[in-house]
Amino acid sequence: MENIKQYVQENKERFINELIELLKMPSVSADSAYAQDVINTAEAVKASLEKAGCDVVEMCETPGYPIVYGHKIIDSNLPTVLVYGHYDVQPADPIELWDSPPFEPVIKTTEIHPEGAIFARGACDDKGQMYMHVKAFEYMIANNNLPCNVKFMIEGEEEVGSKSLGWFVERNQEKLSCDVILISDTGMISNTQPSITTGLRGLSYVEVEVTGPNRDLHSGLYGGAVANPINVLTKMIASLHDENNHITIPGFYDGVEELSLEERAQMAKRPFSQDAYNKALDIAEEYGETGYTTNERNSIRPTLDVNGIWGGYTGEGAKTVIASKAYAKISMRLVPNQDWENITELFQKHFESIAPKAVKVKVTPHHGGQGYVTPIDSIGYQAASKAYSDSFGTTPIPVRSGGSIPIVALFEKELKSKTIMMGFGLDSDAIHSPNEHYGIFNYMKGIETIPLFYKYFTELSKNQ
Amino acid sequence: MENIKQYVQENKERFINELIELLKMPSVSADSAYAQDVINTAEAVKASLEKAGCDVVEMCETPGYPIVYGHKIIDSNLPTVLVYGHYDVQPADPIELWDSPPFEPVIKTTEIHPEGAIFARGACDDKGQMYMHVKAFEYMIANNNLPCNVKFMIEGEEEVGSKSLGWFVERNQEKLSCDVILISDTGMISNTQPSITTGLRGLSYVEVEVTGPNRDLHSGLYGGAVANPINVLTKMIASLHDENNHITIPGFYDGVEELSLEERAQMAKRPFSQDAYNKALDIAEEYGETGYTTNERNSIRPTLDVNGIWGGYTGEGAKTVIASKAYAKISMRLVPNQDWENITELFQKHFESIAPKAVKVKVTPHHGGQGYVTPIDSIGYQAASKAYSDSFGTTPIPVRSGGSIPIVALFEKELKSKTIMMGFGLDSDAIHSPNEHYGIFNYMKGIETIPLFYKYFTELSKNQ
Repeated sequence: MENIKQYVQENKERFINELIELLKMPSVSADSAYAQDVINTAEAVKASLEKAGCDVVEMCETPGYPIVYGHKIIDSNLPTVLVYGHYDVQPADPIELWDSPPFEPVIKTTEIHPEGAIFARGACDDKGQMYMHVKAFEYMIANNNLPCNVKFMIEGEEEVGSKSLGWFVERNQEKLSCDVILISDTGMISNTQPSITTGLRGLSYVEVEVTGPNRDLHSGLYGGAVANPINVLTKMIASLHDENNHITIPGFYDGVEELSLEERAQMAKRPFSQDAYNKALDIAEEYGETGYTTNERNSIRPTLDVNGIWGGYTGEGAKTVIASKAYAKISMRLVPNQDWENITELFQKHFESIAPKAVKVKVTPHHGGQGYVTPIDSIGYQAASKAYSDSFGTTPIPVRSGGSIPIVALFEKELKSKTIMMGFGLDSDAIHSPNEHYGIFNYMKGIETIPLFYKYFTELSKNQ
Repeated sequence: MENIKQYVQENKERFINELIELLKMPSVSADSAYAQDVINTAEAVKASLEKAGCDVVEMCETPGYPIVYGHKIIDSNLPTVLVYGHYDVQPADPIELWDSPPFEPVIKTTEIHPEGAIFARGACDDKGQMYMHVKAFEYMIANNNLPCNVKFMIEGEEEVGSKSLGWFVERNQEKLSCDVILISDTGMISNTQPSITTGLRGLSYVEVEVTGPNRDLHSGLYGGAVANPINVLTKMIASLHDENNHITIPGFYDGVEELSLEERAQMAKRPFSQDAYNKALDIAEEYGETGYTTNERNSIRPTLDVNGIWGGYTGEGAKTVIASKAYAKISMRLVPNQDWENITELFQKHFESIAPKAVKVKVTPHHGGQGYVTPIDSIGYQAASKAYSDSFGTTPIPVRSGGSIPIVALFEKELKSKTIMMGFGLDSDAIHSPNEHYGIFNYMKGIETIPLFYKYFTELSKNQ
């Protein structure tokens, strides 16, 4: 694979132009007005896989948008890499905050991207990162150095909760069988310090409703004599954390893995400035669970956050009302070994138990997902680490992300394979926001790094 | 005044028809589309006072809608009663919930009003109650038995906060000088148990804003590591009450008058069923400050209620966001001797002091007003009590209302006179709601009772 850098350099312009064509297609899965564009994008992905050298490429029907499947099987005795990505994108709203139209890609330089970045919806998430895999595959076919089998599964509903993916995976376990799953849909620390996401948090998302009197009341005539559901809700929510910001739900921490001091020391090596973090968020001080650092709090520790709260009069001016109802949306980020369905049940039981008799409480579970950890001593991680080391000249740092990608747990359950998250995006890429972009450096580095993963993964597999 | 019952009976139909004409005028002060109707209503009130027998009637210009002033001075050595009322009405919204058009009055019987009630916006609040005074005055002029001087001050901005009233009263202290102020803009317990409102609570209304990070954040990537302003706001609000539902703001209770057991025993005589109260509100249990009954909690005790709260994602479904800001509208009902401006300051200072360093807090005072108490040994109260006793055959019960009428404290301050609140409405009259109505029994009883107040007030004044 000595010539990968040269191949990338020689084809750079074409790689960029092909991605730009893909980015022009507004494949917004959340908005049915774009349904045909989503389908067209799937067709374009299918065509690109065929052209790159897959033996078989299929548009697989699902209850929702199709999943593009392709493969190249060179030898059933060799390991198989399953590449997952998605061709749908977030809505572009609020459009007025974009400096250029979201589906008319432009290349501009920025401080972080002196080589330029492509500005368009989906540039990083996930068309740019997904297409790196197509181009890396093209390189290996063109140069006759594909070291193993490869399968592609590119879906079109990631931005709306991967609604059909579980359905598809359950029904196609043999077709999707593999030795490792490779995803580029996360980020890395910086262009000089690569990192590999080794952990994701799970999620339990619930909505609560507190009902006091059966109608809105005049706060003068009734105030003080009836339970105000907003006051009660604030008391109930406040009680969910103690003075050390530990969560007070009985059983919540059962099974939560305590990392060894050694592991925490490893984590702490990640370059991080609390001052810069606070400055970027304009906060005077960090805040969280006693005994843990910021990077531990947002990755290896579970949380309970109110994502939304509402009740009573919220318009201009003043209204002296005691509302009949108050609501909150509450999510808990979970760590591996916390089962999201069990946690949802514990929350519900506890929340109902702490309600004063003067109110009624309803807890509605929304959705959830399990947390995930990739062991850093796995050959998948080792192969990825070597690949980054070669292409960046720096050993990547394993990073636990605080976010959740429920499909990763699904893959492990259904396909019995570990997932390696080789993300090349940066925090500053503004995914899900106006002016999303993806660095040309990152795009090219991704194409350059991926074949090295294939090489090392195949080598390490032989030694097992 | 022996013939008052007879006069009311003989003129009943005309009294009803005159009120109906007044109710047809949509004098909605909150909506400028009705500006001309508000002016026309003022003109009609002016004409009615002239016709009833005032010597002088004026449309007094203010920065807002005019105040109708009229008087009949029979002897400067006799006491003077100043009648206050308002000719503007609440908006009729939501119109679709009215059973008949709000400005096309109809008479219908109800369970509580077997003699019929007039259904129209403003029927009780306050056109019906205000017009009783015009008709009672007409009776006394027509029968040549007006025992004292009388002044009328009927405003057109009560439903929008009496914006010009303070301006007017400050500038017309001599014109408005009086020995007592008489208002019918409250209610009584029932048609068989009259009551007189002797106390009103004061009010301090504030809005609070808690700012965490400078922008909305992904709750996966940041959750647990930054102060979530909604979580923090719930903790701050929750801490404002202790486990006995006492308010924890330092100094909040300074000066709060503790009623004697004797006075509380008097209050407890008011007919009241906690079961019926809970059933009407569909609550399993009452809730409030330890050591006080429901009727004490909502009248002689101060409160702190959240009237509105909002922050984060409040739409359908789920969004895993940590909001940058969270808000609440909070009002405190105050009892006499609590100065609303002082309480607002105490709140602000305390709320800012309990904020963790990781957030910024802003407290914006909205508005407020002082509480008020009429001593039941005053001659005003005694005269009103005798008047009700005569016309209803039952001694009225003094009642402290939990609501606030800031103008009453204003009158006391500017005019140095006590206010007597002789309300004839019922809780069930649906003021400020669809299908507002006013019982014909109540309207007639009011006209019948008011001249008796004049009589007793004049008599008791002589004995002072």
